[in-house]
Amino acid sequence: MAHPLFEKHQSLLQRAVEAVRRRTYWSAYSENPKTYGENAIEEGRQAFMAYLDAAFYLDQPGVMGRVIAEPSPYGLNLDISFPRCAPDALIAAAKGAMPTWVRAGPDLRAAVCAEILERLNARTMEIAHAVMHTTGQSLMMAFQTGGPHAQDRGLEALAQAWSEMKNVPETVVWEKPQGAHPPLVVEKRYTVAPRGIALLLACATSPTWNAYPALFASLATGNAVIVKPHPSAILPMAITVALARQTLKDAGFDANLVSLLVDDSGTPMAKDLAVNPDIRLVDCAGRTEYAEWFEDNARQAKVFTHKAGVNCVVVESTDDYKGMLRNLAVTLSLHSGQTSMAPQVILVSSEGITTPEGTHDAHQFGRDLALAIGTLVEDSARAVEVLGAIQGAATVACIDAMREFGNESGQILRDSSPLQHPHWPDARVHTPLLLRAEISDHHVFMEERFGPISFVVETATNSESLAVAERAMREKGGVTFAVYSTNPVMQQLAEETAMRAAVALSFNLTGGLSLTQSAAFSDYFGTGANPAATASLVDAAFVTNRFYVLETRRDAG
Amino acid sequence: MAHPLFEKHQSLLQRAVEAVRRRTYWSAYSENPKTYGENAIEEGRQAFMAYLDAAFYLDQPGVMGRVIAEPSPYGLNLDISFPRCAPDALIAAAKGAMPTWVRAGPDLRAAVCAEILERLNARTMEIAHAVMHTTGQSLMMAFQTGGPHAQDRGLEALAQAWSEMKNVPETVVWEKPQGAHPPLVVEKRYTVAPRGIALLLACATSPTWNAYPALFASLATGNAVIVKPHPSAILPMAITVALARQTLKDAGFDANLVSLLVDDSGTPMAKDLAVNPDIRLVDCAGRTEYAEWFEDNARQAKVFTHKAGVNCVVVESTDDYKGMLRNLAVTLSLHSGQTSMAPQVILVSSEGITTPEGTHDAHQFGRDLALAIGTLVEDSARAVEVLGAIQGAATVACIDAMREFGNESGQILRDSSPLQHPHWPDARVHTPLLLRAEISDHHVFMEERFGPISFVVETATNSESLAVAERAMREKGGVTFAVYSTNPVMQQLAEETAMRAAVALSFNLTGGLSLTQSAAFSDYFGTGANPAATASLVDAAFVTNRFYVLETRRDAG
Repeated sequence: MAHPLFEKHQSLLQRAVEAVRRRTYWSAYSENPKTYGENAIEEGRQAFMAYLDAAFYLDQPGVMGRVIAEPSPYGLNLDISFPRCAPDALIAAAKGAMPTWVRAGPDLRAAVCAEILERLNARTMEIAHAVMHTTGQSLMMAFQTGGPHAQDRGLEALAQAWSEMKNVPETVVWEKPQGAHPPLVVEKRYTVAPRGIALLLACATSPTWNAYPALFASLATGNAVIVKPHPSAILPMAITVALARQTLKDAGFDANLVSLLVDDSGTPMAKDLAVNPDIRLVDCAGRTEYAEWFEDNARQAKVFTHKAGVNCVVVESTDDYKGMLRNLAVTLSLHSGQTSMAPQVILVSSEGITTPEGTHDAHQFGRDLALAIGTLVEDSARAVEVLGAIQGAATVACIDAMREFGNESGQILRDSSPLQHPHWPDARVHTPLLLRAEISDHHVFMEERFGPISFVVETATNSESLAVAERAMREKGGVTFAVYSTNPVMQQLAEETAMRAAVALSFNLTGGLSLTQSAAFSDYFGTGANPAATASLVDAAFVTNRFYVLETRRDAG
Repeated sequence: MAHPLFEKHQSLLQRAVEAVRRRTYWSAYSENPKTYGENAIEEGRQAFMAYLDAAFYLDQPGVMGRVIAEPSPYGLNLDISFPRCAPDALIAAAKGAMPTWVRAGPDLRAAVCAEILERLNARTMEIAHAVMHTTGQSLMMAFQTGGPHAQDRGLEALAQAWSEMKNVPETVVWEKPQGAHPPLVVEKRYTVAPRGIALLLACATSPTWNAYPALFASLATGNAVIVKPHPSAILPMAITVALARQTLKDAGFDANLVSLLVDDSGTPMAKDLAVNPDIRLVDCAGRTEYAEWFEDNARQAKVFTHKAGVNCVVVESTDDYKGMLRNLAVTLSLHSGQTSMAPQVILVSSEGITTPEGTHDAHQFGRDLALAIGTLVEDSARAVEVLGAIQGAATVACIDAMREFGNESGQILRDSSPLQHPHWPDARVHTPLLLRAEISDHHVFMEERFGPISFVVETATNSESLAVAERAMREKGGVTFAVYSTNPVMQQLAEETAMRAAVALSFNLTGGLSLTQSAAFSDYFGTGANPAATASLVDAAFVTNRFYVLETRRDAG
């Protein structure tokens, strides 16, 4: 008899596995706010507001004190206090919780994970406000990215993990003929066994979307997970952890299979914990330098990182110049370029851009793109829905530094300026900075510049454009690569470039699809094969590295 | 239309995938010598002898000189010269060969790999003699392990790789509804893309068995493979590489997808090559210290190692004392303990061993096991079929050093002595050394002692036996763990120990199955989760880490 929880979620799991195999459009969780109820947004806001000035409840062991949440990029003072727990206490509790979880087996574990996702979905609007006020995303983006899209990614990882685990039978009788002698008969049992405890370091700009795949892949395969959110984005993952703990408890398991470790910028705890021998998996989405530290030092663990890179756009020709400009303007502006998918370098050759209306040179293109951005952000009420707020003050400093560069070289195509948010007077909102750069400025544009900063670079030829893009993405990493070309030869060369740089390639996006959109069950996020990431969301390697198969055999001849 | 080669091998591939999923007994390649023809053994011997005193033909680029094969452990002078090629030339050739191989796609690549296996199978007896005269295995073991068993393992890896690649569709149209607006329509293409060039370091004691899974997993997923055999076991992999190159060529591909890099002990080349940025996969079966070097230094690559450990046996009770002794004697003697599966430490508590005939104490057990080994090796003609020859002189030195330890502590249960081989007067044959050790000698028995050296260790309690085994395998690694117990509580504790140490567990082997036997399509070899190995043969992670999926999308709305 299957467990009732597995009966409840079995068809969802099967449908999700099918979706992963097909990769056509599918989504389990609605991205239409109305689905969540007439007053869902307001109810979510109230649920979120109730956390403010309060102590966040988490029944975890080893509490040593409390950490206060950082203020929102929108200027709201969060003042939520989270319990700070001793890592050793969380590890000890996690170890104690695992054996029962392992014995539960793949079906029940997957079902409990699906139940957590269902409950997360019910709390989508509350989490949306929490994501908005920690990451700076606009509410609508925080809702979609932090809610249904993150849940879909979590379900995608869960489905991959479940499917891979189900490829391993539980017990077999192995019977080998021995000619005239009686056969060798051996009873064998196979147990999907966890690697150990997973440390999940969530990021500041998209905490749930980046973390859910790892959370569910690790948990479904039997591991306990310690979630360490970025100090500036604790609340979304705190809500997630609290809900996961309650779900585990309700299903009869030890809540300590998922726990929250909070720290503040003054006393970071991740690095100490990551080298603990009991930590066997580390997932880290974050700054390149930070994530690389874990790759280099957490040698006892399998380390999955999503960093950033220098994403490139090569523009050679288009049959929709205006559509291209509009699409690029949106792509550069979405959440102020604060995702690892945002492009930084736009390469145009001195041969210009072929369009149905004639050829536009790189200078003209730069001016036109600046205008397109201007059109997008001229109405501040509409602009803030696209731009959101700048998550960290360091990003504003980076804009300032790059403006300096532009002033010195006299190549500012569109300056960045602060923007007044209609509802949040203290919100940190800045329009995108668009610069021109020469190939000789490669030390400037070929370093990652986080935030709404991009460069139009003129090359000698389209081949040089591809070569510069390839070098940037091979050396610095790349998550996205966009090429505008109607020329089949150029497209072929671009595909070869993408293969060598191991970066996903998007051709001729001029409509509603932005380069920075990555759909669960269809798009791979990162390849894991260039410096931008060691993992891909969600390929088979992302889940198969989280468990091993323990075999027990006994003579039965 | 499917390629004829795929049509030829499709059903074999499908059957192999089914076998991996079922894990019941199945084998694709016969382990009955007669299947290979009436005079197959003799014909194989002649084919092997034809290599002696000759130049091994390999049409590879960058030849810089030649390397001479080392003498056989059986005393035969091989005097085969292999071309030594410049690593840079092999890398350049491999890079040039890959794009066409990638475009061929998973089905055709898998079919070419299956064709290589079919041709290897036809050359089984020739390879058997090559394995015998490089590893020291007896001819019959070299035939089975180096021939059909190695081929089965290769096919198992190929099937896993093919199955994982086939989970990824080639093209889809992704169509996302947009409410009242027209849907977003995106054409997406997914290409299974190789990580790069794989460096495969084959070992000295079982070169084909350990190497074929990596060879076929890497090749099938699109990577080029440079095979670097151990200087003392070049011939089996040279034959394999030459045959793979010819098969690739016959199928219309560039032979440089597989190449052989030979070196000698004086001028080793593996470490330099392993840190080359173009090397993205490293497989290494070998000594712990050696393999760990690659784990620590080849940071640009995914590194899969199979090292060795301190395998333990815990004896608590048995209903077949004589069967157990006989089984242990064979296990300790097979190929003179020169596999990573051979046990080294046998733990018996001072409570003794419960049997139907009463309790035997640890001293009695030690004497009885020594006698069982004596019975096995008393007839030298029969003994050499089990023992084979000692592969390396260092192993004889290790036996001597451990005899010293035994002499000092006065605890030699059965001394090792040279044995005259009836056909090969200069063969390096030595009987197993069985020692008693105290728990306080842990610095001696808890270090890996390669070869036919084992220790009977008396513990205070059966719990201590499990605890010592757990510590040995957690700290030093373990590939196999054998427990003799008829007690369900003890069995349960043993399973928990195995789970914590991440080591495969065998209960009560008293019949024809030896602890050191690992069957393709059923047994996992290594877990990849303790220090003995970072990989498991053949689990999903072994193949999924060798490729990434490159996505190309374009607006089609």
